Amino acid sequence: MTIASASWTATVLTLFPEMFPGPLAHSIAGKALERGDWAVDTVDIRDFATDRHNTVDDTPFGGGAGMVMRADVVDAAIASVADRPGPLVYLTPRGRPFDQAMAADWAAGSGVTLLCGRYEGVDQRVLDKRAPLEVSLGDFVLSGGEPAALVMLDACVRLLPGVMGSRDSLEEESFERGLLEYPHYTRPADWEGRPVPETLLSGHHGKIAAWRREQAERATERRRPDLWSRYRDGRAMETTKHGAAC
Amino acid sequence: MTIASASWTATVLTLFPEMFPGPLAHSIAGKALERGDWAVDTVDIRDFATDRHNTVDDTPFGGGAGMVMRADVVDAAIASVADRPGPLVYLTPRGRPFDQAMAADWAAGSGVTLLCGRYEGVDQRVLDKRAPLEVSLGDFVLSGGEPAALVMLDACVRLLPGVMGSRDSLEEESFERGLLEYPHYTRPADWEGRPVPETLLSGHHGKIAAWRREQAERATERRRPDLWSRYRDGRAMETTKHGAAC
Repeated sequence: MTIASASWTATVLTLFPEMFPGPLAHSIAGKALERGDWAVDTVDIRDFATDRHNTVDDTPFGGGAGMVMRADVVDAAIASVADRPGPLVYLTPRGRPFDQAMAADWAAGSGVTLLCGRYEGVDQRVLDKRAPLEVSLGDFVLSGGEPAALVMLDACVRLLPGVMGSRDSLEEESFERGLLEYPHYTRPADWEGRPVPETLLSGHHGKIAAWRREQAERATERRRPDLWSRYRDGRAMETTKHGAAC
Repeated sequence: MTIASASWTATVLTLFPEMFPGPLAHSIAGKALERGDWAVDTVDIRDFATDRHNTVDDTPFGGGAGMVMRADVVDAAIASVADRPGPLVYLTPRGRPFDQAMAADWAAGSGVTLLCGRYEGVDQRVLDKRAPLEVSLGDFVLSGGEPAALVMLDACVRLLPGVMGSRDSLEEESFERGLLEYPHYTRPADWEGRPVPETLLSGHHGKIAAWRREQAERATERRRPDLWSRYRDGRAMETTKHGAAC
């Protein structure tokens, strides 16, 4: 096996292969793609249609608006990439919400295969047979899985070794400790009569770290009560464990 | 005012204008873009740098990894689009989570202005001054706001009048009633020994609607306890209101 073949590979099953790499051809992900730190391979689901009209979808049994992607066509597309590394993921609003832990998990492997639905989604029977990990980007509806796939790949690619300049930056960032990030400031020190908080100019590392932690906690408590209660529960558990050890 | 100038407009403030319209140039959003149902206008934040190196960022006060986008540069970029319709939105993991109600709200207006951060984000003082709506796509970290902006625009554009073929399809879909969607089936009726649920072949509209509702409720209860408890609370309130009216 060569080093090139070992690079992290995203396989995307889609009716719109022309959407990839799209925005990921630029900036950090684009440079990493050029260097060969990762690769994206699209598979056109339409290539697995079996009739002369290249039909991939049909009307839903039981009636209703929209079209459903056929089980036989999608299944053949999945079979064609059965040897790919990493989990098979189906992007659907019915799935488990995507989060940073999932991105880190996928990035730690050799790659991921993303099945993008269009229309009303894919026939349930191909999901029953293939049992993909069903993942949702959030509680909203898209025209298809493709824009969501681009976001998930961006989140993964920046975690690959060598892609971001600094590991510190990854470790300090949002959600790594279950908190939102603290606010950032840069030059000029006084902008339109708005000064940078004094502590940040003090050069006192301990005070700066304490200020940032307090800001992160306050923002999380005010903006995201859901994250805040999980964070507090986690801290309470740590304290209990420590207490038990003493 | 001409009809063309009245079309829904997304203004995107970004360091990577080449990422737009990206995937939105294809499929449903792409066809709507060609028809003039919506427009995307990118503003390159780098055009508002004032030094000869076109500097847009600098190191954070208080130390730490990464770079912060300068308040003066970002503020000038925002000032250049102050006359645009709709809310000013800053994409950040610190923001309020994006959801279908937000997409519907933005789509009902004349457009939206999206400020995409890169690096560690923008200087807090420009956020204090401009008070944008801070919105997060989810609990994960991206290389910048751009992939998130593409997703939010896709969610909005498909809700614009005339973009989707059928209003029915929009009304039946996920989250419209606070439930995940029911499973879909299409031809063939028997695939690899897996038959379509009998009810869907019955032609009995009432039974089909009841089956689908039950499937949607079961999936929501099992997969998303958070949505399920909100849905049950909502139903309990409806029952109470009805009771009071009687």
